Amino acid sequence: MRFDIVARCPTTGARAGILQTAHGPVKTPAFMPVGTQATVKGLLPSDLAPIQPQVILANAYHLALRPGAAMVARRGGLHRFMAWDGPMLTDSGGFQVFSLAARRQLDDQGVTILSHLNGRPRRFTPASVVRIEEQLGADIIMPLDVCLGYPSSRAETEQALERTHAWALKAARAHRRPDQALFAIVQGGTEPDLRVQAARALGSAGFPGYAIGGLSVGEPRALTDELVSLTAAALPDDRPCYLMGVGEPDQLVAYAQLGVDLFDCVLPTRLGRTGMAYTRDGKLNLAKAALRADPGPIDDTCRCATCQHYSRAYLHHLFRAGEPLGARLASIHNVAFLVETLRSFRDSLLARADATSAASSS
Amino acid sequence: MRFDIVARCPTTGARAGILQTAHGPVKTPAFMPVGTQATVKGLLPSDLAPIQPQVILANAYHLALRPGAAMVARRGGLHRFMAWDGPMLTDSGGFQVFSLAARRQLDDQGVTILSHLNGRPRRFTPASVVRIEEQLGADIIMPLDVCLGYPSSRAETEQALERTHAWALKAARAHRRPDQALFAIVQGGTEPDLRVQAARALGSAGFPGYAIGGLSVGEPRALTDELVSLTAAALPDDRPCYLMGVGEPDQLVAYAQLGVDLFDCVLPTRLGRTGMAYTRDGKLNLAKAALRADPGPIDDTCRCATCQHYSRAYLHHLFRAGEPLGARLASIHNVAFLVETLRSFRDSLLARADATSAASSS
Repeated sequence: MRFDIVARCPTTGARAGILQTAHGPVKTPAFMPVGTQATVKGLLPSDLAPIQPQVILANAYHLALRPGAAMVARRGGLHRFMAWDGPMLTDSGGFQVFSLAARRQLDDQGVTILSHLNGRPRRFTPASVVRIEEQLGADIIMPLDVCLGYPSSRAETEQALERTHAWALKAARAHRRPDQALFAIVQGGTEPDLRVQAARALGSAGFPGYAIGGLSVGEPRALTDELVSLTAAALPDDRPCYLMGVGEPDQLVAYAQLGVDLFDCVLPTRLGRTGMAYTRDGKLNLAKAALRADPGPIDDTCRCATCQHYSRAYLHHLFRAGEPLGARLASIHNVAFLVETLRSFRDSLLARADATSAASSS
Repeated sequence: MRFDIVARCPTTGARAGILQTAHGPVKTPAFMPVGTQATVKGLLPSDLAPIQPQVILANAYHLALRPGAAMVARRGGLHRFMAWDGPMLTDSGGFQVFSLAARRQLDDQGVTILSHLNGRPRRFTPASVVRIEEQLGADIIMPLDVCLGYPSSRAETEQALERTHAWALKAARAHRRPDQALFAIVQGGTEPDLRVQAARALGSAGFPGYAIGGLSVGEPRALTDELVSLTAAALPDDRPCYLMGVGEPDQLVAYAQLGVDLFDCVLPTRLGRTGMAYTRDGKLNLAKAALRADPGPIDDTCRCATCQHYSRAYLHHLFRAGEPLGARLASIHNVAFLVETLRSFRDSLLARADATSAASSS
């Protein structure tokens, strides 16, 4: 999988790149909407298309339990199943194994969980997760990793990291489909030296891309900032860097400036369902009384379908009346807002790079 | 408002018509999706547009209580508020007054209800409802009427009918906007002679269209059939006939053959939300286990966006996973199915009429 850095920020670590996948190019930095269950909650590909997200996520763990990866494969794979023909990424479900499974037994070879759906035991190994992801058919696939909560002891963190590292290498040996790129995930909890060590060790193993996992799990923001900064800096500069599960608007920009290329987060649709909408002035509660007759859009600089066609008064009405369209319109806006945050970041980075190169050539 | 009958069935009472409204022509017979709260539940105009519904309904009573008709007027009216630029109809809410209001006091001049939302008293009269509907701005508006449950005594039915008749005439006197057509509603419960009497009395008052109200409220199907038949026959033949709240697929066809031109029903979206989908072989429960891996569409003759892009297996998965997209895709299909039922009925009526006229001219 080819990744070209087409411009770099002269003052920060930010870069604009293009990642080539089997389903088309991905312009980075990019925010990737999350479609855990093979659906970005409440949205159709026809809602997403005008937003132009570069990649859509799904979750191998969830889909393996229901409806089953083999069945999705028989239906033509994930792209066809959900009618999305752009680039996709499947997370392995390492995070879900550790947060959702009713019980789990972890050993060096993998994990046995009792399904959160039916309580039945199910075994996941680095190789079996790669098989599941091959059946699903996303363009970028993530290996099974060991996730920790916050705080965790250094000893726990060391053991989890060791397994995560060994599992990434096992996943790489199991990986067969040349149209899928297997990234590696850097763990290391909140231990700076372990993060750097993991980034260097995996970085030397030649994966086509790297993810920073296990952050935004409750640790203080300053610590997140520090860990992203030193981990991103320790990863190979010529490979895409994906920060998992982080997506507050200000974080996207701050971490893109540290060299992060890909982001995902469930917040835009989760907030949208509760009537919270992003604006350039912070989050807006669409159900609050002050918006009852407000003629303006959610954000008057936004070009999404919601802001083009609907007033805050209409959205307020939908949430007050408990109408499902409210969640959908707010989700469309929130996803578009985050996608656009990084698109405009990328555009201005490219514009500055052009200006710099014009100045130096004259 | 002009209504032209362009073809008649040689063997039944069915006719194909074109009703001219301020927001474009309505080809009848037509099924009108219901958007009570200024939203067809869960669907955007962009979902509806490919289905080409001829008219969308909204409800004056609901919208008067929340968000308020004056506010909708300040936002540019109902069409602009919900971003639908095709023909619209507002029901008066007579049915809701009698089914939803916590308490109501009825007199010859109108009704005082305690709002089902906040318990506050609110007065509705035939003239005030017309004012509300003028503020909302639909193309076709319905007068306040007195609805009864089933069964009701003859005395109750007579009194309700008398008020409904008097209120229709009061609504006509209050009616001002020339771009809105005020229909009259025929009540009369399950008393055949009262239905016919009401149809003739209102029919002679020169309304631009007529509705048959108060049916499908629990009475036996054979009685519904009989009452629709004799009421439709007693109404002026040159005016559109709208059967309120009736929408099982077989009823649409049966009653179109009796000369009914317009139908509405909440069932397609209500059933869709529970995972029930119309097919040519009856209703299908999308959550049932047999569909887990079914590669086919809901109905293989259907041309809706759901059937074009999604398998039963995907829909099954969405309902099993509790994903909101399931309700939306099933609603799109169900609305399309009913709209298409009458569109193809109309097309074959026109085709037969052409064949008849070709045969008689040769």
